[in-house]
Amino acid sequence: MLFRQCAAMSELPKAIGIDFGGTSVKTGVVRGSEIIDSAPPIATQDFDGPEPLIAMMVRTVEDLRLRHSKISAVGIGMPGFVHFEKGMVFNLTNVRGWQNVALKGILEAKLELPVVADNDANCMAYAEWKLGAGRGFRDLVCVSLGTGVGGGVIVNGQMVRGANYGAGEIGQTSIDFQGRRGHYGNLGALEDYIGNREIARDAQQAYLAAGISKDIEDCSPVALAEAAQHGDKIALQRWDITGRMLATSMMNACWLLNPEALIIGGGVARAGELLFKPLREHLLQQLSEPFKDHLAILPANFGHEAGTIGAAALALEVAGL
Amino acid sequence: MLFRQCAAMSELPKAIGIDFGGTSVKTGVVRGSEIIDSAPPIATQDFDGPEPLIAMMVRTVEDLRLRHSKISAVGIGMPGFVHFEKGMVFNLTNVRGWQNVALKGILEAKLELPVVADNDANCMAYAEWKLGAGRGFRDLVCVSLGTGVGGGVIVNGQMVRGANYGAGEIGQTSIDFQGRRGHYGNLGALEDYIGNREIARDAQQAYLAAGISKDIEDCSPVALAEAAQHGDKIALQRWDITGRMLATSMMNACWLLNPEALIIGGGVARAGELLFKPLREHLLQQLSEPFKDHLAILPANFGHEAGTIGAAALALEVAGL
Repeated sequence: MLFRQCAAMSELPKAIGIDFGGTSVKTGVVRGSEIIDSAPPIATQDFDGPEPLIAMMVRTVEDLRLRHSKISAVGIGMPGFVHFEKGMVFNLTNVRGWQNVALKGILEAKLELPVVADNDANCMAYAEWKLGAGRGFRDLVCVSLGTGVGGGVIVNGQMVRGANYGAGEIGQTSIDFQGRRGHYGNLGALEDYIGNREIARDAQQAYLAAGISKDIEDCSPVALAEAAQHGDKIALQRWDITGRMLATSMMNACWLLNPEALIIGGGVARAGELLFKPLREHLLQQLSEPFKDHLAILPANFGHEAGTIGAAALALEVAGL
Repeated sequence: MLFRQCAAMSELPKAIGIDFGGTSVKTGVVRGSEIIDSAPPIATQDFDGPEPLIAMMVRTVEDLRLRHSKISAVGIGMPGFVHFEKGMVFNLTNVRGWQNVALKGILEAKLELPVVADNDANCMAYAEWKLGAGRGFRDLVCVSLGTGVGGGVIVNGQMVRGANYGAGEIGQTSIDFQGRRGHYGNLGALEDYIGNREIARDAQQAYLAAGISKDIEDCSPVALAEAAQHGDKIALQRWDITGRMLATSMMNACWLLNPEALIIGGGVARAGELLFKPLREHLLQQLSEPFKDHLAILPANFGHEAGTIGAAALALEVAGL
């Protein structure tokens, strides 16, 4: 039986997944839901514009192909807007020089492999939907909580990309029409309350208001989770407020789309029940029966590997494998 | 030319559309986007439970069929949750006795015609999408502003119904996570700010704060529109605030789904530019380029006939006509 399972595993098609981040580009060989090999990360900011970085990505993929036969496709998750069908990168938020880059075409010509490019949050959502916590659901919303708050939406068993490939920007949705003014002029954006940095800054203020002076590093989500586990009341309050704010955006997605599942991932979600308990409470209090009946509220399955795995899985799907 | 157009019109299939409201049940014969005949409305509250009301609906449909040959299908929009495929009405918010009524099956047996039942806001959205202001769009959000605030969502060229047929409840989405507590325990629900009655109540308060005492009828959206057209500053402010609040929920739908169009209908939308101008301003200020580029913000095409037309059109589509 074990032998047959192993044989079945080795028959699964393999693809290379690339998780293109503002800091580093991570490349791995993916089989099923597993990264079976990976290349050293490329430091994104070491490269001046797309041409040299694309050349480095090609070399990295070719190196991995020397070690692995039968790579069927390459998938790339990009931190910005990507025309999915054309594989054209319109613009990256945090990487200079990337405007209107025909990434899919350039890479396909050099690699002679099918290439798929999509937004990074869509890749993460795809990994969770096809291989992770969201398996089997037809309607779901995935959220990734980190420095930024991103997401991906699946409706009627299809990824939602929207008219200009922007769908899923849950972090930019408002929880307060008179709230903080965000990067895009939007008032009360979720990300401006529960992004990594904002959680820390607001916690620092809360401690200060209670007469406790703390360095900002001691107010990070990781530090707050540890403090809360030791019964620190202010830290516990901060997690309750974070869960409540997240619940508002999740509730809005539920009233609008009536999904079967919400999948919550990213660094901040590692706080576990400290976040999930208030999230569930505040969310379920604010939904009527058809919206909360059987609603699954689940932690994401894949951590920092979700982007690589999802990009590879998406590439295999598009290639028909 | 005129003759040929008329001939083409008379060849279009006909269906009966039923708009089942909390006050009255309106029934019409629909051809294309036109109600070519209609029956006297049935007073919903005159009937005690579903059986006698369904019997009355059957009689009304049969009367119309005596006057019109070749009726191909019957569509019904219901004010509540409907299992679309089964045509089962789970529950109606404002009509007593309607729990788990197998409406489609009962009517099909009596009428010997294909019957389709859906949520009323979905029928309205369907009418606008297929025959009205939303024609040709693949991703759109429709909103109806009245006593209640409802909506319908189309994604990837498909109606979004959701896991329990609840999708599209835009009026229940929050614009303020610390706001007013709504009917379902949800805080800051849009409907609790820009529903007909809430607009009037808040305007009455605003006048009072300025030392002006007004009857509630003189603060209705219709009265406020007339006052604003005569330059009344408080009325103009109320429309700006209404547009801004609506903009928040529309912005949230845009960040989440990146639609091509927003279609705004219902009685309150009859205020026209008094509502649409602040809506556009506040909305476009809070979206980045890919979300506002080519975004159409349009008044609905059909007024109070949208439900009847949409129900009939949906019935014809399901019947394959």
